[in-house]
Order: sequence, then C-alpha cells, then structure tokens
Amino acid sequence: MTTAAPVPSVDPRTGAVRAQVAREATPAEVDRAVTAAVAALPALADRTRRAALLRAAADRLDAARPEILAAADAETALGEARLTGELARTTYQLRTFAELVEDGRYLDVRIDRADPALGRPDLRRTKTPLGAVAVFAASNFPLAFSVPGGDTASALAAGCPVVVKAHPAHPATGELCARLIREAAASVGLPAAVLTLLHGFEAGPALVRHPLISAVGFTGSLRGGRHLHDLAAARPRPIPFHGELGSLNPVIVTDRAAARRGEEIGAGLAASFTLGQGQFCTKPGLVLVPADSAALEKAVVAAAAQAPGGALLDPRIREAFLAGAAARAALPGVEVLLPAAPGGAAPLAVRPGILAVSAAQLHEELLEECFGPLTVLVRYRSGAELDGVLDRLGGNLTATLHLGDDEPPAEARALLDRLGALAGRIILNGWPTGVAVAPAMHHGGPYPAATSTGTSVGTAAIDRWLRPVAYQDVPHDLLPPELRD
Amino acid sequence: MTTAAPVPSVDPRTGAVRAQVAREATPAEVDRAVTAAVAALPALADRTRRAALLRAAADRLDAARPEILAAADAETALGEARLTGELARTTYQLRTFAELVEDGRYLDVRIDRADPALGRPDLRRTKTPLGAVAVFAASNFPLAFSVPGGDTASALAAGCPVVVKAHPAHPATGELCARLIREAAASVGLPAAVLTLLHGFEAGPALVRHPLISAVGFTGSLRGGRHLHDLAAARPRPIPFHGELGSLNPVIVTDRAAARRGEEIGAGLAASFTLGQGQFCTKPGLVLVPADSAALEKAVVAAAAQAPGGALLDPRIREAFLAGAAARAALPGVEVLLPAAPGGAAPLAVRPGILAVSAAQLHEELLEECFGPLTVLVRYRSGAELDGVLDRLGGNLTATLHLGDDEPPAEARALLDRLGALAGRIILNGWPTGVAVAPAMHHGGPYPAATSTGTSVGTAAIDRWLRPVAYQDVPHDLLPPELRD
Repeated sequence: MTTAAPVPSVDPRTGAVRAQVAREATPAEVDRAVTAAVAALPALADRTRRAALLRAAADRLDAARPEILAAADAETALGEARLTGELARTTYQLRTFAELVEDGRYLDVRIDRADPALGRPDLRRTKTPLGAVAVFAASNFPLAFSVPGGDTASALAAGCPVVVKAHPAHPATGELCARLIREAAASVGLPAAVLTLLHGFEAGPALVRHPLISAVGFTGSLRGGRHLHDLAAARPRPIPFHGELGSLNPVIVTDRAAARRGEEIGAGLAASFTLGQGQFCTKPGLVLVPADSAALEKAVVAAAAQAPGGALLDPRIREAFLAGAAARAALPGVEVLLPAAPGGAAPLAVRPGILAVSAAQLHEELLEECFGPLTVLVRYRSGAELDGVLDRLGGNLTATLHLGDDEPPAEARALLDRLGALAGRIILNGWPTGVAVAPAMHHGGPYPAATSTGTSVGTAAIDRWLRPVAYQDVPHDLLPPELRD
Repeated sequence: MTTAAPVPSVDPRTGAVRAQVAREATPAEVDRAVTAAVAALPALADRTRRAALLRAAADRLDAARPEILAAADAETALGEARLTGELARTTYQLRTFAELVEDGRYLDVRIDRADPALGRPDLRRTKTPLGAVAVFAASNFPLAFSVPGGDTASALAAGCPVVVKAHPAHPATGELCARLIREAAASVGLPAAVLTLLHGFEAGPALVRHPLISAVGFTGSLRGGRHLHDLAAARPRPIPFHGELGSLNPVIVTDRAAARRGEEIGAGLAASFTLGQGQFCTKPGLVLVPADSAALEKAVVAAAAQAPGGALLDPRIREAFLAGAAARAALPGVEVLLPAAPGGAAPLAVRPGILAVSAAQLHEELLEECFGPLTVLVRYRSGAELDGVLDRLGGNLTATLHLGDDEPPAEARALLDRLGALAGRIILNGWPTGVAVAPAMHHGGPYPAATSTGTSVGTAAIDRWLRPVAYQDVPHDLLPPELRD
C-alpha cells in the first residue's frame, strides 16, 4: 500500500513551505467524492434551497475575509488590494447566481399548448442539471476562478454538485474556502458533498474519466486543458468539457488612433498588460500598431518601466515566463523595447517586458500566449499587412480596437467584423483586462480561448451545466413547478 | 489518377439500379465545397435575406412536390402518404425558421448599460454564426433529416453555409432538393454555395476533418456517429459535433395502467413501434410491463400481426434488422411473441417482431437499439426489478410513462423524475413517435441519444450553430443592428 503524497502550501515570496495542508487524493478517494456528489444531486433539486446555499456561502466567505486574504496572499503574493477585489467579486458572483436561480428565467421555459385540431400534444420544456461536475481551480485566481469561483457558483446554481480539483499553488486557500462552502451547505440543510475538494495531479484525469462525472469546467493552460478535453471526448460516454485554454487578446491600433492618442494608448496598454503582473487571461499580448507609432511606443515603454514589478504565482510560472520572454526576444527581427527580467527582492518577482517586431517578421512563436507581463508590438505598414496578421490568429477571449475620432465608419465596421470572427468579446477604445460579472458578459471565444460556446463569466455561465427536457401531455400536478400554467 | 466512383440510385422494392445520379466527391471537391461555403458566409449575414432564402426554398420544394415524392418513394419505399407528410413537415420547418430569424429573439440579446459609478462599461451581447457547417443526411428521413431537413434549415437560419454529405440510400432525392435550394438562393440574390451536396463515404470524415468546417450535424448510427464525433474532437481545432446516435425509447407501464388500459396500451404500442416500419429514431424499443399483463401482450401481438409489413430502407438495414432480431430471439429466456421475418413480395419487406423476457433475464444485447419494427417487452415483478432495469439504461431521446387514472401522485412523480434523468422528452400516456416542430420540443438527450445538449428538432435547434459575442463600449453606429437601443 502506498501512502498519498502530502500537499505543501508554499509562500511564493520566499519559496518556503508554510505547511502541509492536505494529501493527494487516492483513486478510491476520487471515487468516493464523485459518488457522494451524485448522491447529493436530489437534495439540490430545490431552487430556493440552492439560492440559500449560494447566499450562505457568500456570507461565510465575506465573514472570513481576513483569514481568506491572509491565506491567499501567502500562497499567491497577489497582494491585499487585488485579493480584496477578487473576494468581493467572488461573493458578488455567488449572490448574483442566487438571484438568477430564484428568478428562474435561466430555465428558458417554453410552453406549447395542445392543439387538438392539428393533433399537437401539450409540450413544455425546461432545463435540468447535467449531474455531478468536475471543476479545475486556476492558478491565477485563487478565489474567483477556483474553489468558490464562477464554475462552482454557476454549477451549484444549476443544481449540479461539484468536485473541485485544487490548484497546487494555493491548496490552503482552497481548503479554507471548501470548508466554508460545505459549512454553508450544512447550514441550509444540504449535504456537505455538494462540494468536495481534491488535491494531487492524478485526481484531475481521474475525475474527467470518472463514469459518474457529467461535465467539466477548466481554466488553465492549452497543453493541460487540451489533454483533459481529449479525455472527456474519448470516454465511453463523452461529456461537455468547458475549458478556457489561453488567449493572445490582440489589440489593433489604427493609424488615426495612434496619431491622435498615441501617448494615451501607450499608457493604457502598459497599465493593462502589467495589471496583476500580466497574469490575467485577458492580458493584451499582441498589439498591432502602425509602423511609425513613436509616441505610442515611447509611452508604453515609459509607463511599463515604472510599473511596480512583483512576484509571479509560482516558480514554474516564473520560469516559463522568463524563458518564454527570452526565447521570443532572441528571434530574428525582434527588438527588445523593455527587457523582461527577474525583478527584485522576492524570489518570484519579475519586471515586465515589451518586444516589437515588424508584421513581415512575425514569427509563429510570437502568436503563442506568454503568461505574465509581456506584450508584443507588431508594426504594420499597410492594411494588407494588418489583414495578414489577423488571418494568422487563432481564437481569442477578447479583441480590442482603438480608433481615431475621425475614423471612417465603414472601415471601423469592417475591422469590428474581422474581430468578431476572432474573439468572444470586442472592446472599443478600452482594454480587455477587467471582466464584469454581468448578463451580457461573454468570457469565451473560438478555440483555444474556449473549448465550447459557453461563457465562464456572467450569468449565462449557468447554461453550461444544464440540458433541456420536454414534457409531453403531463398533467399539471405532475409537472415541475416552473412548467405549470 | 483515379476516377471517382459513380453513385447509384437504387429502388429498394426491386433492388434495381434506377440510374447513376452523381459521382463520389474527391478530396479536391470536398475542399472546393468547403471553401465556397466559407466564402458564402458574409452574404448570409443579412437576416432578412436569410428569411427570404428559407421561404424561397420552402416554396420551391412545395412546387416540386410530385417530383420529390416520386424520387423519394422510388429510393426509400416509404410510400406517398408518409412522404407527403414528411415534405409538409420539411417546408413548415423551413418557414418556421424564417419567422424565427426575422423575429430575432433567438439571438438572446442582452444589454447592460454602462454604470460609471461602478466603473462598469457598456456591454451588449448577441450571437454570431459559427461558420460553415457539415450536415449528414439520415437514411430514414430523405427530406426532414436530410438535404432540406432540420439541420440544414437551422444552420442556414443561423447564418451558416452548409455542406451536406448525402445518404447513399437516396442520392437522387438529395440531388433534386439541393438543386432547388441552390436555385432558391440564387433567386434571392445569395450565392448557390450556401448549400453544397457531396456524395461518397469518404466525403464524411473529410468534411469533419476539414480545417474550415466549424460544426457538424449528424443523425445516424452509434458506430458511424461515434467515429465522426471522435474525429471532430481530435482536430487541431475541435468543433461541436451535434449527433443523434440512437435511442431505445423505453416505455414504462405501471401495474395500474396495465390493469385498467392493457388492451388500449397494447394496440397503441403496436401502432407506434410499427409506424414507418419501425424506422423512426423514437420507436419504442423496450417496454417495461408488469409480469402479468396478459391483456396488453395479447393486444400488442394481435395488432402488430395485422400491421402492413413493408420494405425497409435499404438492403444493409434490412439485413441488420433480421440478423439483430434473430440474435435477440435466440438469447436464453427470450420468448418470441411475434417473429420478425422477411415479409412478402418486395425484396426489402419485413414483418414486425415482438420479444418478451423477464427483467431478471434482461441481457445486455437487448439494451441495444435494433433499427426496424422490433420491440422487446420486459416483464417486471416488482418496483425493485423495474428500478434495476432503469439503472441499466443509457441516454434516450424519449421515455414514456403509462399510468393508471388512480396512480398515487407521489409514485407517479418519482417515476417521472427517474425518466427525466434518462431522456430528453418525457411522454405521459402517449407514444414517442411523432416529433412536433415547435419551440418547446426537445429532440436530444443524454448520450448516445445526443452527443451535445442541443436539439435537432424545433426552433431551439438554431442555437447549435451560434456562439455569443459581446461588444464593450461600441458606439451605436458601429454596433450590429440588433444591439442598438
């Protein structure tokens, strides 16, 4: 018999192991967690109780703010300000889904009354939860895209019990949040197994392969996410895999925009790509600028050079960032406007980097996301060159367009149409970082931005965990409540 | 250089080749068809024109009714009555999608106005077509699930050009319908390439693998569908695969229902499972009856014995039906109440079969769909036995419950809940054959009934070909029309 490996909580500022906070889940523990989740499904059928669970979880998370912020900052070095905002967003998200569940419109109820003349039966359609789902916590959001995050909130709102695979960068934060949610469940009369947290690399594929798991939510790397996507598709019973796998988040700056607002755009770009040490999935990583944008280039370099460097999330991410930035800087034709570099006292700190290259020399490697505070300016000399670069882009979460005040509307519309084909969210004269939790939000996009047409942020995220079911000629007293007249 | 094989149109009543109606598509032809479809995408952006296309197609199909019915009957032996109904359903479907496109509510537009106090941007979400899609024609519906069928109608309505893989059982019907739709496109100023028809087995996987195909619609066998599903998931850019792969369509008859309405249920079952020679995807193939349902069993056998036998769709289907029925009949404990058998003068004709088995002896092979007029009665002696059988069922398009007038509501609700977990549509005291084209229809269900949570019948089918896109801070004159105030 083997003993499961301990799971350490590591301080990224010092590299020190703070504590062993858990053990890696054994295959038997994965099975037990999933079985318990499935057993909790009927208890989640009541919408009022689900709403109560979501609110109780939000209340407990808010009440434990000091402990949560301390744990999350100790494990991620994201800092109190950023984490305070992230916790507020997380509990807002939980409460928003509570309202959504009570409201019921997310069920998209459709009622076609019988028409005896046409021989048509009475048909009523609602939506039903898919079953127990697996959620993968993300490295870069220990709260909002992890244990108490959007995937968990939307899945519980849909009525799906959740088994979360913890992220190894913040296991103590995960344990704390999982305990609070499980206590919240108990406080509203629901089984704690509506959410179970598992640790260890092997738990990931084991969850995706488990016959009783009915869908997966994932935010992470292209490589890891694609592997899990393929496992989900290859099961005897394939299941939906809602993965967010990476995004370049291209920005297009027109000649007119660069000429009129070069300095402002440069400063805005610096703020956006260095925000949170560039560890947002919506970080602008590729910026198409006119070849003669001296003011813009000067402004972005000056502002980024002033940005406070800081620790990346974990040693692996930092190593990948520095290696990725160096490899890109060494490509022929690439000009280093600001060198990405180790950044100071904290062992995981880095300084942001800016590269520039002509559209004609845009290497394939520069079209791959580099996670962390690096952005690449691509200098184009003509609309044809700009088009040529857009032709080479894969799917993205966002695409941003900077226009001049005097941009001809037809050209602006043509550019917006191009970008609409490339991304899930189109931003005009702004920046992609900052993703509102709102009904109209779409946080997804063509592959690899997302592996499905679903969104992982905003109220529409609930739809990923539901499937329609129609009732034909079922009398009122036997119908689900939302389908009665 | 190889010459592409000719595609014959075969009369299933005689086995005679009527004509060579086309040639199998070469890889170059597949590529040309997809490239032309992608080029037609911008022309389909206008909703008014798409609605006009759908109506023009319906008008042309209706006007060509005599030729279409003649071609389809000659290739499928489905008979004029059934095909008249199928064509009416097909053109109704096209016109229904025309109305849906004009109405615009299918876009699920969401508008969150800016809130400067909260720092929230203006966010507006609509939906955009996925791109060119591949549609696979089904053997059993030469019209409603083939070239002019629901997948094509919903995809065109969504704004997606379609490349159809013809079914080899009805290539002439497919050619005729494709020509009419392409003429309809030209008549409203759209390129003919909004729909292209391809023949030949190899065209199927080639389409699913083509880098410019963005989604797939499929209705057919578990084996073929699963193969294509796996190809779609394994692509460098995975794409949605909306497949309908088979369904047992279980029916549960309670003690009270069998005691009060045994004869009526037996007669209804016979009519349902022999309808269209049992070649509907919603054919009730597994019927759970109380062990002492003599009246029901007698009635279903008597009625099915009187059912007019008829030709199956093609020699392969007939061979599989007779072999499948014989293999199931030979299983230990299986009682043959009515033997499935070759059925008369036409070479492809068969007589319906009914098998019975105790729940305790229900072999795994009896849980696999047998396409054609065969149904299996499973005799249960207790609620526990009934539950045990339901536990073994995979996903289904439909599940049907027959209750007595005096059924205790709590028991009825518990059964409906069980069935809701197994199927996409639940029918009470009726039969699953007959699938209304209506907003509340759901024609899908857990795998293998469907490979996604989408529906292939009803207006919600349009959503399979769309993805959301959000616009942030885009001024009115640059927004898509549906997103303006």
